[in-house]
Amino acid sequence: MITCDVILSHEYIRPEELKGRTAVVIDTLRATSVMVTALAHGAREIICVAEPKDALRLKRDHPDFLLGGERSSLKIDGFDLSNSPLEYTKEKVQGKTIVMTTSNGTRTLLKSNEADQVLIGCLLNAKAAMEWALSQGRDIVLINAGTAGRLSLDDFITAGAMLSYSGGKAALTDAARAALLLYEAHPDIRSALSGCLHCQRLEGLGLADDLRYCLKMDQLDIVPSMEEGRIR
Amino acid sequence: MITCDVILSHEYIRPEELKGRTAVVIDTLRATSVMVTALAHGAREIICVAEPKDALRLKRDHPDFLLGGERSSLKIDGFDLSNSPLEYTKEKVQGKTIVMTTSNGTRTLLKSNEADQVLIGCLLNAKAAMEWALSQGRDIVLINAGTAGRLSLDDFITAGAMLSYSGGKAALTDAARAALLLYEAHPDIRSALSGCLHCQRLEGLGLADDLRYCLKMDQLDIVPSMEEGRIR
Repeated sequence: MITCDVILSHEYIRPEELKGRTAVVIDTLRATSVMVTALAHGAREIICVAEPKDALRLKRDHPDFLLGGERSSLKIDGFDLSNSPLEYTKEKVQGKTIVMTTSNGTRTLLKSNEADQVLIGCLLNAKAAMEWALSQGRDIVLINAGTAGRLSLDDFITAGAMLSYSGGKAALTDAARAALLLYEAHPDIRSALSGCLHCQRLEGLGLADDLRYCLKMDQLDIVPSMEEGRIR
Repeated sequence: MITCDVILSHEYIRPEELKGRTAVVIDTLRATSVMVTALAHGAREIICVAEPKDALRLKRDHPDFLLGGERSSLKIDGFDLSNSPLEYTKEKVQGKTIVMTTSNGTRTLLKSNEADQVLIGCLLNAKAAMEWALSQGRDIVLINAGTAGRLSLDDFITAGAMLSYSGGKAALTDAARAALLLYEAHPDIRSALSGCLHCQRLEGLGLADDLRYCLKMDQLDIVPSMEEGRIR
């Protein structure tokens, strides 16, 4: 039987432990929700970079690229798009290459390279991501981006939501079991997250619509994967 | 308002973040349950050491010391006591100095030194430990020993049980909120832990009585603290 594990923040990734496994990178608020949305709306591909300057350099050589992401939850100077999934409409992103850098999500993706396969997950594609990961037949690790190097409740409960679709097909580590028990006790995710620090911060910035969108489960069927830094 | 945080395994301790805070070290299965039990039964003090050879060296100079602890959950060669709290009876430990080394618990204690105060917690003294920590007025960090450097469900739910006594007197980080939500959904801790890896391992070793004992909440009122490696 395959094993499902959850890593609780990108700071806790031990790259050597990812070998031979299928990773699902989760940054529900908001990087992986943005990626899944952009690709569902027809974006050609997403390139993850560590720093804003890396994105601006790519744009000089490729003026048609769109730059997206955030620092301190806000749009970066000189970028085309912020980290709000609601900006990534079909009109704006269809056929486009998007270069992204965010505080936690893209950093986590870049650290997850050692896995045999890196999938992109969030609540929007929770069921699809878990079913796709299970179909690969390898041990699975759900990698939470976390916030500031620590557990973030939105990512942790997303992992639990995904694990609710693992139904007996996988052995769970204690971290995975904790996430699943939490989700099962709180299937109404928005109320479970009320009061969590990251949500309060986004609401304070007037981004309550982003929260409402990102916390809807199983809205999209696509499961992007990353190869050589490119997500399709 | 003070803040309560949970660190999910000794591998995730950042010592510089412990400064100015009250730490409660938790290794419910079984090191901190042993310590609380031994001191409740009249042991004079407990000295934590990293390795069995350190304990054996102390015993050469102090033949009256008792050596306790485990490797791979079992008693160590040349030691007087294993890591079973049921062995630490009044008859055996009253007035004695006990030298302990365990795989996760004593390691976590030795790494927690930077905190302003280090308290010893487990389910047996959950309420007493939380009330004592709150009374100190500093920010609180509940440090889970974890298992093999990772989240262990028994320690995580113990943190949640303690936080259930923080009732509005502290702001919770996401990790603390997750632990509390989990405990509130599963106040019957034994059933929440059924199937967790560490419990299965202990049951497999014939230690079901230890599990039954360690998973009882609020049985003891003492809250030991560690100073210069000595727990009283």
